[in-house]
Amino acid sequence: MTADDGFTYDRLSVDDAIALFVDHQSGLISLVQDYPPGEFKNNVLAFADIAKFFGLPTVLTTSFEDGPNGPMVPEIRQTLPDATYIPRPGQINAWDNEDFVRAIERTGRRQLIIAGVVTDVCVAFPALSAVQDGYQVFVVTDASGTFNEAVRNAALARMASAGVQLMNWFSVACELQRDWRNDIEGLGGLLSTHIPGYRNLMTSYSAAKGVKG
Amino acid sequence: MTADDGFTYDRLSVDDAIALFVDHQSGLISLVQDYPPGEFKNNVLAFADIAKFFGLPTVLTTSFEDGPNGPMVPEIRQTLPDATYIPRPGQINAWDNEDFVRAIERTGRRQLIIAGVVTDVCVAFPALSAVQDGYQVFVVTDASGTFNEAVRNAALARMASAGVQLMNWFSVACELQRDWRNDIEGLGGLLSTHIPGYRNLMTSYSAAKGVKG
Amino acid sequence: MTADDGFTYDRLSVDDAIALFVDHQSGLISLVQDYPPGEFKNNVLAFADIAKFFGLPTVLTTSFEDGPNGPMVPEIRQTLPDATYIPRPGQINAWDNEDFVRAIERTGRRQLIIAGVVTDVCVAFPALSAVQDGYQVFVVTDASGTFNEAVRNAALARMASAGVQLMNWFSVACELQRDWRNDIEGLGGLLSTHIPGYRNLMTSYSAAKGVKG
Amino acid sequence: MTADDGFTYDRLSVDDAIALFVDHQSGLISLVQDYPPGEFKNNVLAFADIAKFFGLPTVLTTSFEDGPNGPMVPEIRQTLPDATYIPRPGQINAWDNEDFVRAIERTGRRQLIIAGVVTDVCVAFPALSAVQDGYQVFVVTDASGTFNEAVRNAALARMASAGVQLMNWFSVACELQRDWRNDIEGLGGLLSTHIPGYRNLMTSYSAAKGVKG
Amino acid sequence: MTADDGFTYDRLSVDDAIALFVDHQSGLISLVQDYPPGEFKNNVLAFADIAKFFGLPTVLTTSFEDGPNGPMVPEIRQTLPDATYIPRPGQINAWDNEDFVRAIERTGRRQLIIAGVVTDVCVAFPALSAVQDGYQVFVVTDASGTFNEAVRNAALARMASAGVQLMNWFSVACELQRDWRNDIEGLGGLLSTHIPGYRNLMTSYSAAKGVKG
Amino acid sequence: MTADDGFTYDRLSVDDAIALFVDHQSGLISLVQDYPPGEFKNNVLAFADIAKFFGLPTVLTTSFEDGPNGPMVPEIRQTLPDATYIPRPGQINAWDNEDFVRAIERTGRRQLIIAGVVTDVCVAFPALSAVQDGYQVFVVTDASGTFNEAVRNAALARMASAGVQLMNWFSVACELQRDWRNDIEGLGGLLSTHIPGYRNLMTSYSAAKGVKG
Amino acid sequence: MTADDGFTYDRLSVDDAIALFVDHQSGLISLVQDYPPGEFKNNVLAFADIAKFFGLPTVLTTSFEDGPNGPMVPEIRQTLPDATYIPRPGQINAWDNEDFVRAIERTGRRQLIIAGVVTDVCVAFPALSAVQDGYQVFVVTDASGTFNEAVRNAALARMASAGVQLMNWFSVACELQRDWRNDIEGLGGLLSTHIPGYRNLMTSYSAAKGVKG
Amino acid sequence: MTADDGFTYDRLSVDDAIALFVDHQSGLISLVQDYPPGEFKNNVLAFADIAKFFGLPTVLTTSFEDGPNGPMVPEIRQTLPDATYIPRPGQINAWDNEDFVRAIERTGRRQLIIAGVVTDVCVAFPALSAVQDGYQVFVVTDASGTFNEAVRNAALARMASAGVQLMNWFSVACELQRDWRNDIEGLGGLLSTHIPGYRNLMTSYSAAKGVKG
Repeated sequence: MTADDGFTYDRLSVDDAIALFVDHQSGLISLVQDYPPGEFKNNVLAFADIAKFFGLPTVLTTSFEDGPNGPMVPEIRQTLPDATYIPRPGQINAWDNEDFVRAIERTGRRQLIIAGVVTDVCVAFPALSAVQDGYQVFVVTDASGTFNEAVRNAALARMASAGVQLMNWFSVACELQRDWRNDIEGLGGLLSTHIPGYRNLMTSYSAAKGVKG
Repeated sequence: MTADDGFTYDRLSVDDAIALFVDHQSGLISLVQDYPPGEFKNNVLAFADIAKFFGLPTVLTTSFEDGPNGPMVPEIRQTLPDATYIPRPGQINAWDNEDFVRAIERTGRRQLIIAGVVTDVCVAFPALSAVQDGYQVFVVTDASGTFNEAVRNAALARMASAGVQLMNWFSVACELQRDWRNDIEGLGGLLSTHIPGYRNLMTSYSAAKGVKG
Repeated sequence: MTADDGFTYDRLSVDDAIALFVDHQSGLISLVQDYPPGEFKNNVLAFADIAKFFGLPTVLTTSFEDGPNGPMVPEIRQTLPDATYIPRPGQINAWDNEDFVRAIERTGRRQLIIAGVVTDVCVAFPALSAVQDGYQVFVVTDASGTFNEAVRNAALARMASAGVQLMNWFSVACELQRDWRNDIEGLGGLLSTHIPGYRNLMTSYSAAKGVKG
Repeated sequence: MTADDGFTYDRLSVDDAIALFVDHQSGLISLVQDYPPGEFKNNVLAFADIAKFFGLPTVLTTSFEDGPNGPMVPEIRQTLPDATYIPRPGQINAWDNEDFVRAIERTGRRQLIIAGVVTDVCVAFPALSAVQDGYQVFVVTDASGTFNEAVRNAALARMASAGVQLMNWFSVACELQRDWRNDIEGLGGLLSTHIPGYRNLMTSYSAAKGVKG
Repeated sequence: MTADDGFTYDRLSVDDAIALFVDHQSGLISLVQDYPPGEFKNNVLAFADIAKFFGLPTVLTTSFEDGPNGPMVPEIRQTLPDATYIPRPGQINAWDNEDFVRAIERTGRRQLIIAGVVTDVCVAFPALSAVQDGYQVFVVTDASGTFNEAVRNAALARMASAGVQLMNWFSVACELQRDWRNDIEGLGGLLSTHIPGYRNLMTSYSAAKGVKG
Repeated sequence: MTADDGFTYDRLSVDDAIALFVDHQSGLISLVQDYPPGEFKNNVLAFADIAKFFGLPTVLTTSFEDGPNGPMVPEIRQTLPDATYIPRPGQINAWDNEDFVRAIERTGRRQLIIAGVVTDVCVAFPALSAVQDGYQVFVVTDASGTFNEAVRNAALARMASAGVQLMNWFSVACELQRDWRNDIEGLGGLLSTHIPGYRNLMTSYSAAKGVKG
Repeated sequence: MTADDGFTYDRLSVDDAIALFVDHQSGLISLVQDYPPGEFKNNVLAFADIAKFFGLPTVLTTSFEDGPNGPMVPEIRQTLPDATYIPRPGQINAWDNEDFVRAIERTGRRQLIIAGVVTDVCVAFPALSAVQDGYQVFVVTDASGTFNEAVRNAALARMASAGVQLMNWFSVACELQRDWRNDIEGLGGLLSTHIPGYRNLMTSYSAAKGVKG
Repeated sequence: MTADDGFTYDRLSVDDAIALFVDHQSGLISLVQDYPPGEFKNNVLAFADIAKFFGLPTVLTTSFEDGPNGPMVPEIRQTLPDATYIPRPGQINAWDNEDFVRAIERTGRRQLIIAGVVTDVCVAFPALSAVQDGYQVFVVTDASGTFNEAVRNAALARMASAGVQLMNWFSVACELQRDWRNDIEGLGGLLSTHIPGYRNLMTSYSAAKGVKG
C-alpha cells in the first residue's frame, strides 16, 4: 500500500471512541507471560484511567467470572463505576453476545479501542468481528496479554492483516488528547501516575526551577 | 487494508475445518530450536487433542519415515487412530502428493488448519499451494517448529503475505468451540491438560469453594 | 579454592538422600515467571518421579494451603502418596517448623535435595538453615521457581556462597543412579517421560533397528 | 502484493527529501528504553550528520521545551544551525501545527524522512498525517525511540500498514548517496564517525597498505 | 566452602537490621536500564514499605541533590518521614561521610540492608566499606539499579566475593517476618500492594469462597 | 489479502531462478551482528552450495574490493568459479550497475534469489529495484546480515511490503528440489554438510541399522 | 580470596595436559539447546583440533553407543585416530570407569581439559571426581552443551565452587601455545578454520598488502 | 567468606593504580560480539579518558600489530600520548613479556586496572599472572570484549575465583575520584562525554534553572 492508495488516517476521537475491556479477570491474568506482571497491571490501569479521563463510553465484559477465571480485576471496576458491565454466559467471542454488541451500538460510536486477556482470543475474536461489521478497531497491545511473545506476535499479525490498528496505551491517550492545552494538568497527572520516568522528569524540573541560575 | 475493504472474518468452523499434521517425525523434531522441547511437544499434542475433541477430519503425512527423519511421533497416531495417513515417497511439498490433496478434497471442507516441522518448508509450501487453490489456510504457529526464530519469522511473514492466517493452538480451540456451553467439561479438560496455569486455577478454585466464606 | 584444599565430592547417594518439596502450591506457582509454565511443571513432576523411582524418603510441606496460596499441586501428592506431609501453620522458613525438621532427622539421612516455590524464600531459607545444621544441601534449581531471572540468580548466588550445591533434576537423577545397569529400564522410562528429545531418540532408534542395513 | 501490482520503488533523492527531527529533547529521551543510550545517541547524531552532509532542508520541532520535556539535544542544533526550528505550543501531532506543515510545504519536497521520540506518538502521528496528505514518508527507525520493543513493534507495524517505509540511518545515507563516487571522502568520513567497525576497517587497511606484500 | 566450615546463617532480624537508601534521586534513576522503569519503581517503594512495616531504623542519603542528580524520589520520603536524612556534600561512597556512618552506629545495629542507584557505585562502595568494618551486609538487588545487566552482574559478583549477601525485597520481607502469624494482615497487605499476582490470588480466593461447593 | 484475491504461488524453479551474492566481502562481514559469525558463514556457504548443486546461473558483485571493504569471501568464489563476477566501481545499489543488470537479463530468468551484506542496503536496494522491473524477488534472509536485529526487521518489512518473498537457505533448497527423488544423495549431502543436527540423524540412523532389532 | 592467599596460577602446559571428550554422541547432541547447533559443532571440533595440534594425549569415551545415544561424532574420531577410546558399559560418571581413570593415570599428567555432553552430568561428575583426586581440572565450557542456559549456569557454578577452572576452546589454545612464535602458521591456521572473523581479517590483510600505500 | 574473615576493601587509589590496555587493536576488535560496537568503543575510550584525567601511569601493549590484528585503536594513543607502548613480539600473555612487567614494576604501584580484547585471553592471562605475583587486580569488564556472553561469563568467573575484582569503567572513575569536590568540573565533563543520559540531565537542569519557579 502506498500513498497513492488514498490512505485515510483514522484518528481516534473523543467523540467517536469507545473503550472495551475484555476478560481482565483475576484468574485469567495469571496466564499472561508476555509482560512482567507489574508492567502489565500498570498498562491495564492506565487504559482504565484513559477511559475515565476522556469520558469515553466503556463496556466491561467477563467470561465465567464465578469459576476459576475469577472476577474482573477490582481496580478497573472502581475506576469505571459507570461502565456497562456484561458477564457473558458462555460466548468466547464477546461479539457473539448480543448485549455486548448492543451496548456498543447504542453509543453510536464507530471507533473501538479494545484490550483484553488473552490477546489471541478475547481480543482477536471480537476485533475481527468488529472490523467485519465496519467498525474502526484499535487494539491496546500493551494492555492485552497472553501466553508468550510468539503467540502475541501471531495474534497481532492476524489482526493487522484485517485492518486493525495496533497501538499502546500511551499513544491512545495522546491521539485522543490532540493538544496538551486541552487539559495540561489532567494529562500530565495521568502520565505522571503511569510513567515513572515522566514523574521523575517533573520532580527534577520542579526542583531545578527553585535553583538560582 | 481497512474496514472499508469489506473484510470478511473467516472463522474456523467445526463443519468446515480439517486438521493437517505434516512431518512431525522423531528425527526431524530434533532440528526444532525455536521452542523449548517440552513446550513444543505440548503444543503439538494439544493440537492433536483438538482434532480429536472436535472430531475434525485429519490427515497425517510423513517424509521418508524409514530413514533418518524417523517415524511420526507415536502419541499423535495414538490420539488420532482414524486419521488418514500418507507417507510421501519423496515430494517435499505435501501438496505435490496427489493422495494428500485428494484426502482433503474428499472431505469437501475448505478450511485447512496446518502444523508441521519445519515451518519454512513442510508448513509454508503446502500452505501457499492451498491458498492458491482457493482454500482458507490457518497455520498453528506454536505447533510448528524450525531452526531458529529468524527463520520462523521470515516464514510466517511469507505466509501472512499470501493470506494465511496465523493462529496458535489455543485460539484454534476457542474459535472452533465458539461457546463454552457447547461442552464445558470437554474443553475445560483439554485446557487443563495442556495449560498448567489453567489447571492450577481449577485446583485453587475447587479448594477455595470448600472454605467457609 | 583449589585442589590443594582437599575438596571432597559429596555425591548424592540413594542411601543418604531425602527429597523435600516446599510450597509447590497451585496459587503460589502462578507467581513463577523464570521458567515457561509447561517447562516448570515438567521439571517439578520429574523431581517427584525421581523421589519415587529411587525410593527416597520424602517430605512435602505447604504454607497456608487453605488460603490464596492454594493446595499443593495434586500430581505431586499422587506420585508420592506415602510422603510425610506437613502443612505449616505460619512459619515461612520450613526449618522453623519442628515437625519438618524432625521428619528429616528421623530418617537419619544427611543429604537434603530441596526444590520449592519461590526460590529466594521457600528454598533459600531452609537451605541455609540446613547447611548451618551440618547437612549437605542440594537445590534442584529447575524445579524451583520465582519472580524473574534476576531474583533467581541472586538467590542461587546466596545459597552457593553458603556451600549449597546447585543441581538440576536430570543431574540429580544421574548422580543417584550411578550406573545405568542398576535399572536401565526404569531410568530410561523416567527420562523418556520428561525429556521429549530423549523419547524421540528412542523412537528413531527402534524404528531404524527394523531397517535392513 | 506482487510484482504484477506495478510496484514503484520510491527512492530517496537529495533533490526531493527533507529531514524532520521531532522532540529529541533532553527530558523525553530519558524515556527511551528500546535502544541502549549510547547507541541511540549515535543514531540520532548520525541522522543529523546525514541531513547536513546532503544539505537537506531540515525542520526541528519540540514540545513544551520549557517544561520537564527539556530542550532539544544541543548537538542536533549545533550540527544543523540553519534548520527551521518550531517549538510547538501544545499540539502533540506536529502535523497539527501549521508552521510545521508550511515549513515543509515551502520546500516543495515530497519525501519526508522522520525520526523522533517517542516512536509511537511523535513519529507515528505526523507520519500517518503526511501519508494521508500524499507525501512519501520514510521513518528512521533507529533514530526513533520509545518505551520498549513491544511498543516499537506495534508502532512500526501501524505505520507500515499505512505505506510508511521503514529504514535506518545507514540505509537513508546510502540511498541518498547513490554512488560512492559522488563524494567518497565525505560519505566515508560520515560512516567512520558513526560506525566503529567501519573505522576499524579503515585503520587496518591503511596499516596493511604500508606493509610489504 | 562446605558445611564443614561451620557456616553461620546470618538471618535478618527486626531487632538488628537497619535500612539504607542511597541516591534514589529523580535524575539518577533515569540512568537505570537493567530493570523496566515500572518494575524498578515498584521494587524501591516495596523496600520503603518494608522499612516502615517492620519499623526499621532507616537512613536516606543523596548526592548533590541540588544539581542534575535531582532530589530523592518523593514517595520514599513520604513513606519514611522519620528517617534520618543525609545529603552528602560530595563524598561518592556514603561510608566516607561521617554523619552517615554515625547515624548507623547510633542504632547499635549490625545488619545493614542497602539499596541504591547505581548498584556498582552507590551500593557497592558503602557495602564493601561496611563489610570491612565488620557489619553484616545485605543488598536488595532488585531495588538497586544500574546501566545494564553486564554492569550489574559484575558489581554483584564483586560484592558477593566480599561476603555481601544478595537478596531481593521479597526475601528481605519474609526473612524479617519469620512467621506469618506475627502479623498476617500487615504482610498480606504489603505483598498485595507490590505483587500483582498475589493480589489476584486473593481476589480469586475471596470470590471462590462465596461460591457453594 | 485473502484467497479470493487469486493469489499465485510463485515457486522457485531450477529453470527460472538465478542466484545473486552482493558484497559478501571480508571487511564488510565484520559489521554483521545479527547472526553469530559461525552461523552466518555457514548460511552463506550453504547458499553458495545451493547455487552450485542446482546449477543456477550466478552473479557475484562487490563494492570497492580494493579498499577497506575487502575482497569477496574466497570460499564463495571457489565454490562458484564460473559465476559472473562484477566489481562495481561505485554504485551502492547493484541495480544501478548496468553490467549487473545485463548479466541477469542475459539469462532470461525472472526469479532472483538475493543474499548480501548489509541487508538494509546491499540486499534491499537491488531487491526493490528488481521488483519494480517486474522480477520475482526472493531474499535469503539468513545469508544476509546487518548491524542488529532492529535494522534487519525494518529492512525485511520494507522489502516484504514491496512484494519480496522472505525465505531462508533451507527453504530455497527445498523449493528448488521439489522432490527428494530428483537427487536424494545430492540434497542429503548438502543438508548434512550445513545442518549439524541432520548429520547427527544420519549418523545415528546408520549405526542403528547395524543393530539387530 | 585475595592476592594475600598466595594464589597460584595453574597454567595449562603442553607437557602436563590431557584432553577428554565425554559423550559427544550423535543422539545425545540433539539434546543440546544452550548453543546454536552450528556454533556448538564448531566449538567441539575446534577442541579436537587443539588436542591434535598440541599433540595432547586424549581420551574419548561414550555411553551406550549402541543404543539411542548413538556413536561418537565421526569427525572427532577422524581428527584424533590415536586417541584412547573407551565405550563405557554403564557408568554415568566416567570416573567410575576404571579404564578411563587408568588411561589418564598412565599419562602421568595432572591437568585435565574436559568437554562433554551434557554439561551437568557427563562433564560435572568426572570433573568433581578428578578434583577430589587432586587433578587440576579445566572445563571447555563452549565445547560442552546441555538442555538450556539455566542448567548450564548451575552446573558451571557447582564446578567452579569445587575449584574447576572455566575456560573456552580459544583460551585453552592460547594458554597452551604461550607464544605465537612457537608455531605461528599452525595456530593461525587453527584459528582461521574455527573463527570466521579471524579468517576475514587475514583475507583483508593479504589483499591490502598488495595495494600500493 | 563472611565479615569475620577480616575482609579488606582494596579501594582503588590515584596514588597506587596503573592502567593497562591490552590488544585493543583495529582487527581484533572486530571479533568482539558481547557488546554492541558503539557501546564498546565508548567504554574503551571512557577508560582512556579516566587514565588521562587521573594521571595514572599507563601501559599500552599490542600483539602482532603489523599483521591482521591491526594497530591499536588510534584514539587510545591520541588520548594517552605519554603512555608506555609495548608491541609484543609473540607472547600471548602480556605478563610473559619482560618489558611489560618491568614497565609496571618501575611505577612501584600495586593496583592494576586492566582492560583488553579478548577478555578470556588478553585480559584473563595477565590478570591471573599478576594476582599470583601479589598485585591487586581490577578488570574493567565493560572495556573488555570477547566472542559472546557465555565466553565472557566463564572468563570473569575464572578471574573472580582468583581474587580479581570485577568493575566497570564508571565504578573505576568513581572509586578513584572519592569525592566530587576533588574536581567537580573535570569528573562531570568526563561523565557527560561518555554517558548520554547524564548529559541530558545536565541539559535539562541548566534549562530549568533559567525558568522562573
